[in-house]
Amino acid sequence: MPTQNGLSTPEAVRRACRSGELTTQTSGLAPGFAQANLVILPRDDADDFRQFCKLNPKPCPMLEVTKPGQFSLSRLANEADLRTDLPSYRVWRDGVLTDELTDITSLWNDDLVSFLIGCSFTFEAALIKNGIPVRHVELGRNVPMFQTNLACQPAGKFHGPLVVSMRPLKPAHAILAVQITSQFPDVHGAPIHIGLPHEIGITDLQKPDFGDAVPVAADELPVFWACGVTPQAALMAARPTFAITHSPGCMFVSDLKDESLRHAETS
Amino acid sequence: MPTQNGLSTPEAVRRACRSGELTTQTSGLAPGFAQANLVILPRDDADDFRQFCKLNPKPCPMLEVTKPGQFSLSRLANEADLRTDLPSYRVWRDGVLTDELTDITSLWNDDLVSFLIGCSFTFEAALIKNGIPVRHVELGRNVPMFQTNLACQPAGKFHGPLVVSMRPLKPAHAILAVQITSQFPDVHGAPIHIGLPHEIGITDLQKPDFGDAVPVAADELPVFWACGVTPQAALMAARPTFAITHSPGCMFVSDLKDESLRHAETS
Repeated sequence: MPTQNGLSTPEAVRRACRSGELTTQTSGLAPGFAQANLVILPRDDADDFRQFCKLNPKPCPMLEVTKPGQFSLSRLANEADLRTDLPSYRVWRDGVLTDELTDITSLWNDDLVSFLIGCSFTFEAALIKNGIPVRHVELGRNVPMFQTNLACQPAGKFHGPLVVSMRPLKPAHAILAVQITSQFPDVHGAPIHIGLPHEIGITDLQKPDFGDAVPVAADELPVFWACGVTPQAALMAARPTFAITHSPGCMFVSDLKDESLRHAETS
Repeated sequence: MPTQNGLSTPEAVRRACRSGELTTQTSGLAPGFAQANLVILPRDDADDFRQFCKLNPKPCPMLEVTKPGQFSLSRLANEADLRTDLPSYRVWRDGVLTDELTDITSLWNDDLVSFLIGCSFTFEAALIKNGIPVRHVELGRNVPMFQTNLACQPAGKFHGPLVVSMRPLKPAHAILAVQITSQFPDVHGAPIHIGLPHEIGITDLQKPDFGDAVPVAADELPVFWACGVTPQAALMAARPTFAITHSPGCMFVSDLKDESLRHAETS
């Protein structure tokens, strides 16, 4: 079905990014296709980061890792260019955000390794298909994301708190959402917390650290999933000399069908 | 492993019931074996009740139904006698509890049909095996059970509220408990509610309608599963001329292994 801007296919979304037409979040675009978080690092830091992802698969499920210098993909898309095909990029130097760009071609070099990491947008399609309303999608906002007091497993210089995305759900929907998202381990899998945000260090649901706030009704529970912004927090803590990430909510849209990522959780 | 009174096998539990040695709840006895709720009705009411169970599989998962007059079982146990092999029975006349007995042989007749219904004790073994503490088991109490404001699907004269059992769990354990109990649809399956008891008509967690109260800590959520006492509530509402049930917590202990009931939820 056609969507916002008619961007109903991954190719159309990537083309719109490349031309500069699309510079905002990708939630809801190219329905049925998996979106991915992006982290780009120089080769020296990439090994440690790969290990960090392996140790923290809930926030950092690796869908594809490129060779140094490679800006095309083999598993996730044909004819993609990672330097131009996301709506917006963040450039980090010594752990500090220095630029927000829609094209990183001028920064590219043969030393850079790209990590594509599964994104919660993928399982939202399955939630909606099962009759579970997703508040930020209904409101046309970015998902609210929060830093928690839960620490990731460190690897080399990479360490930091788990970042989570939050969706308010009625309790029966929360239970169904656990069952559904358990089938999508490559896109964060089951929630990591339900109902008691203080217990994971979140003091105000209306003040997300990333994304937009959404209302939580009295008959709803906040449900928290591990989020792909976690690697950004780890980057900030690690302060590598150079790094590029997607801007929050501005994902890489892949040719992979959401449904192709459905399988039983291994744990 | 040997348990309370050395009642580690289903045969030993049933023998202890038959001899009058065991007249209290069966939680924790014969670990690894499925326990079942019991409802006994005259043939005329049994057809409607069978339909009621079919329409309400979460609270009333049928494990076995006998022929009229039959007090032995084929699927659930060898050499069982349903008239003597439960610790305690409740006798209902016109919907009113008239007797609580440890032996119903004197009330037996060739018109009676017995329903054996899956029990949450079965999935508690799986929870504990996965490192999830179950409060009432730790405290040696009966599980707390509550009438809700959720109505069952009616069938003939049978109707009434859904009754639930409650276990307080830390949020991460609640999520894992959803995943585990989803694999046991024959023993109530996934929870029906988490975290907001008022939403299902429960005003005071410390005043259960059946069973014993247990403390709920500030870092825990009350998690609610459909409960086999639901048919008792339906019986009370239907007011059949005659009925017999197990006393709350005093189940039939079967020869069926808990693990034999593990499979994917069909929904």
